[in-house]
Amino acid sequence: MAIRLGANQYGKAEVRVVAVDRSSPRHEIVDLNVSSALRGDFAAAHTAGDNAHVLTTDAQKNTVFALARDGVGSPEAFGLRLARHLAGSYPWITGARVAVESYGWERIAVAGVPHDHAFRRPGGEVRTAVVTVDGDGPGAQTHVLAGLTDLVVLKTTGSEFRGFPRDRYTTLAETGDRVLATAVTARWRYLGTDLDWDGLFTGVRTTLLETFAATHSLALQQSLYAMGEAVLERFGDVAEVRMSMPNRHHFLQDLSAFGLDNTPGDRPVVYHADDRPYGLIEGSVVRDDVPPAEVAWQGTPGFC
Amino acid sequence: MAIRLGANQYGKAEVRVVAVDRSSPRHEIVDLNVSSALRGDFAAAHTAGDNAHVLTTDAQKNTVFALARDGVGSPEAFGLRLARHLAGSYPWITGARVAVESYGWERIAVAGVPHDHAFRRPGGEVRTAVVTVDGDGPGAQTHVLAGLTDLVVLKTTGSEFRGFPRDRYTTLAETGDRVLATAVTARWRYLGTDLDWDGLFTGVRTTLLETFAATHSLALQQSLYAMGEAVLERFGDVAEVRMSMPNRHHFLQDLSAFGLDNTPGDRPVVYHADDRPYGLIEGSVVRDDVPPAEVAWQGTPGFC
Amino acid sequence: MAIRLGANQYGKAEVRVVAVDRSSPRHEIVDLNVSSALRGDFAAAHTAGDNAHVLTTDAQKNTVFALARDGVGSPEAFGLRLARHLAGSYPWITGARVAVESYGWERIAVAGVPHDHAFRRPGGEVRTAVVTVDGDGPGAQTHVLAGLTDLVVLKTTGSEFRGFPRDRYTTLAETGDRVLATAVTARWRYLGTDLDWDGLFTGVRTTLLETFAATHSLALQQSLYAMGEAVLERFGDVAEVRMSMPNRHHFLQDLSAFGLDNTPGDRPVVYHADDRPYGLIEGSVVRDDVPPAEVAWQGTPGFC
Amino acid sequence: MAIRLGANQYGKAEVRVVAVDRSSPRHEIVDLNVSSALRGDFAAAHTAGDNAHVLTTDAQKNTVFALARDGVGSPEAFGLRLARHLAGSYPWITGARVAVESYGWERIAVAGVPHDHAFRRPGGEVRTAVVTVDGDGPGAQTHVLAGLTDLVVLKTTGSEFRGFPRDRYTTLAETGDRVLATAVTARWRYLGTDLDWDGLFTGVRTTLLETFAATHSLALQQSLYAMGEAVLERFGDVAEVRMSMPNRHHFLQDLSAFGLDNTPGDRPVVYHADDRPYGLIEGSVVRDDVPPAEVAWQGTPGFC
Repeated sequence: MAIRLGANQYGKAEVRVVAVDRSSPRHEIVDLNVSSALRGDFAAAHTAGDNAHVLTTDAQKNTVFALARDGVGSPEAFGLRLARHLAGSYPWITGARVAVESYGWERIAVAGVPHDHAFRRPGGEVRTAVVTVDGDGPGAQTHVLAGLTDLVVLKTTGSEFRGFPRDRYTTLAETGDRVLATAVTARWRYLGTDLDWDGLFTGVRTTLLETFAATHSLALQQSLYAMGEAVLERFGDVAEVRMSMPNRHHFLQDLSAFGLDNTPGDRPVVYHADDRPYGLIEGSVVRDDVPPAEVAWQGTPGFC
Repeated sequence: MAIRLGANQYGKAEVRVVAVDRSSPRHEIVDLNVSSALRGDFAAAHTAGDNAHVLTTDAQKNTVFALARDGVGSPEAFGLRLARHLAGSYPWITGARVAVESYGWERIAVAGVPHDHAFRRPGGEVRTAVVTVDGDGPGAQTHVLAGLTDLVVLKTTGSEFRGFPRDRYTTLAETGDRVLATAVTARWRYLGTDLDWDGLFTGVRTTLLETFAATHSLALQQSLYAMGEAVLERFGDVAEVRMSMPNRHHFLQDLSAFGLDNTPGDRPVVYHADDRPYGLIEGSVVRDDVPPAEVAWQGTPGFC
Repeated sequence: MAIRLGANQYGKAEVRVVAVDRSSPRHEIVDLNVSSALRGDFAAAHTAGDNAHVLTTDAQKNTVFALARDGVGSPEAFGLRLARHLAGSYPWITGARVAVESYGWERIAVAGVPHDHAFRRPGGEVRTAVVTVDGDGPGAQTHVLAGLTDLVVLKTTGSEFRGFPRDRYTTLAETGDRVLATAVTARWRYLGTDLDWDGLFTGVRTTLLETFAATHSLALQQSLYAMGEAVLERFGDVAEVRMSMPNRHHFLQDLSAFGLDNTPGDRPVVYHADDRPYGLIEGSVVRDDVPPAEVAWQGTPGFC
Repeated sequence: MAIRLGANQYGKAEVRVVAVDRSSPRHEIVDLNVSSALRGDFAAAHTAGDNAHVLTTDAQKNTVFALARDGVGSPEAFGLRLARHLAGSYPWITGARVAVESYGWERIAVAGVPHDHAFRRPGGEVRTAVVTVDGDGPGAQTHVLAGLTDLVVLKTTGSEFRGFPRDRYTTLAETGDRVLATAVTARWRYLGTDLDWDGLFTGVRTTLLETFAATHSLALQQSLYAMGEAVLERFGDVAEVRMSMPNRHHFLQDLSAFGLDNTPGDRPVVYHADDRPYGLIEGSVVRDDVPPAEVAWQGTPGFC
């Protein structure tokens, strides 16, 4: 019978490693959620329960902690070290994928002075990195994605939505002024593996924010594309950007039944923030002259 | 400059439609969470904010409700109707993806008799369907995935884990008897578009459950493969199965510090159910003689 | 300065203990989430960092596992054993509260036969128990609450909402036939500490379900009261019932813009299940001749 | 039969109102999640389905939007307006509780300049307010609680845990230097109803943060008490503070099996951030000379 094992990978997900640099009184903290996965020849484990090729997920977890002991650095750098270590650990392992979430901590200010060892963690936004090593030995390819999730942004004006086709089921009114809100997930692929990860991340993030703010938006698609385009224009090390942007609807509340209008003026305009359903815009912006690298994205959520 | 729009799609996510058949006193209820996405030529919206091609996500939502009014049927059948309608609505729309989550409801028994119009919704497990229409006109391809998520299963014995390699970071002890627990996410691709969707779903689900239970497991990979293989062996309409199975660790609790053992016998064996990290096993089982159809899976979470 | 420590408690939350009875080939599984809290004289820990009275939360966790090794039984029985043990452990501990969530597992049927050691965990609904020991020695009072959360129920008819007052802001139309859906959280206080916990739980749960189904509802408040009243009528060991029932709105979808009606008939009636905001009905049903026991409820979420 | 209705309330939960002040080009945004509940004589609705006293939850929702149209201000001020309006709307309504969550938005900086109408929402921490009106007419009492949830803080040193008693189940080692992390939920009761709400909130929050940072902690209880005490010392308008602080354990990772130490020095110290179980410390700090007001807290989660 022509039944066989297809694509597969396995690993340890969500290792919560926190590393504290105490080499000076001014401590530094790195807070990561690390997931690793191995690719290679694991057929016997599937078909016969033979684990001779299965580097345990427990060992992968231990490796995260052991490597962190040597210093962590940026999520991208740590992902590279871990992915290369895992991919090179046994001949039958032909690839590794490491996904890192990085949670930021800010120093608590006491009487205006940032504290040496007390921190506050802002919630929400998360920095991400995904490193994929594909193959072992001289022909191995290594890919680095950086990104962020849950960057929640909103414009109270400077957003229109007009000129769309009207089929039988279209009832939406056109608008020249609406609230535009979204939670940006963005990931971008780098062309190198030895870059200024922290500097680039900060630059790309700032570009995404500034472009969202500065774009007079005729469609959320337009904002998305403008944001990706700006990143590629400013950062030659970035090959492509993929974004997912839910349209978090803020509906103008109809107050007319109570004899109230709801138009701009001295009093605030009142909206209802709705949960579901929501529009979902997904798109990518790419360089024409850069070859694609689908393996870099394999296993990463999202459409494109 | 060689910057351009890459892959993209957009739509309305999580339309919560509930349809009640009241044509007899014995009501029937269908409870769905429907997400649609369109593919095609939407470049102008991205690059110029020109929405002439943008069938609004609001209209997509309305379409869900309007089509539901004509009867819903199985998630797969409803997804097919909606995806075909959307893909065929305008020339520039060249594809549609519809993802459906279906929540089951059971009749409440009153004095042992199932009630005509009162129901209880068991939580957890969700039935899923994903329909992809790729292209319009005679060359259009239509793909149907069925699936389930959060099927939580556990074996209290009949699971070993031994014979794995030991690198520097391997500290795990071998075991001939452990608790094996997972939350199965499975999706399978059908070879047709006019099948007995409900009957097949029930059959595949039963096969997954029975195979998990009956397999003496030497590795979670082995259980995963056996489950997929059994589905393909029994259901000729299924082309491939993809599964994601987190290893929900149940660690034997060490009670020796209090002078207690923790071995099988008259008293229960005590485990600690751990949250993170967890092993994550992902794999697919395929038929050799069926061509792949990656477009059927595009946008669906998971590695393979 | 007249600043002092007020009410306080501390403990270990969410100990995930799983106990497997392997004394016969037909295994039994108990799956609990146990939280303990101690009350008493812990002032010095607060005001001076003096931990001489602080039985560690780590020890409380260990106690959960150690006591589970002796057998678990019902959530109420286990809560009683643990709360009594903790409350009696040191003179300065004058009370303990133990809250237990119990997750059910069903045997997987293989070829129609329930399996000896393979289980499926239905999600959603959770059985709860809260045991409070108040005081130590002869005057100690012990209270047992049983309960359930996330019992999701729905009626497709047999629910009206009419006759309400209309102030300036009332725009809701009256209805003689609506969908009524809720997720019941119910807790009830027992009059004894040595009862048939499992039998009573099953009986109360069935009563709640049957009464919800059988009540022609003129208001969700009416359903809530009828459910509580039925429990008190049937179970003399129950002193009071407290319930929280969100009104999970299912709005009739207006399809008229597309030329469709949405009335009962051959085709299904279509509703939109909404997330937020939601009505929230909270109420209690009590016996007049039973003294209240607020300490039994202290620390348990809910209004009443 | 001596069965009767006990304590009850009902209302609309989680009205997501967003108000934008567009009276100048520099927009201001207020983003709230508002829940209201009414108390009074609603017995007939419960026992007879008579809704003559039931001001609909839909009308309560409408009232939130209508009142927001007149301007929102601080969460406390808005809660006061809404609670007083609801409590005074009908004779049979004898009390109202309004709970508000407030989500902050920061202006996006473009080229270093805060934007007029583009914002970013930091996640995590939420500002809360609870207003309770108890009674109507001259004898009515009004109470205001302010608060915050999910203020996540951590110290990398300056935390010990020693000197605790050792019972049979105590295995924890003493430590003179541990990571201390928690997510603070704090609520405090004001003595007035016409205060500088925003100024006080900022002051109390800063006091909580600074005290957490500056306290050399011998127990999490000590940190909690010091934080509450500092608030009462600095803010005479605050009558009491109630806090809930989970101990988010960061366990020192044992690396000895791989031949590594894990002590402070040039290389980082490596911890594992654990999810469950967790210690949970709950406590209140009060003024001796202020009468308690339990009704102010009724319906608010937490032990004390």
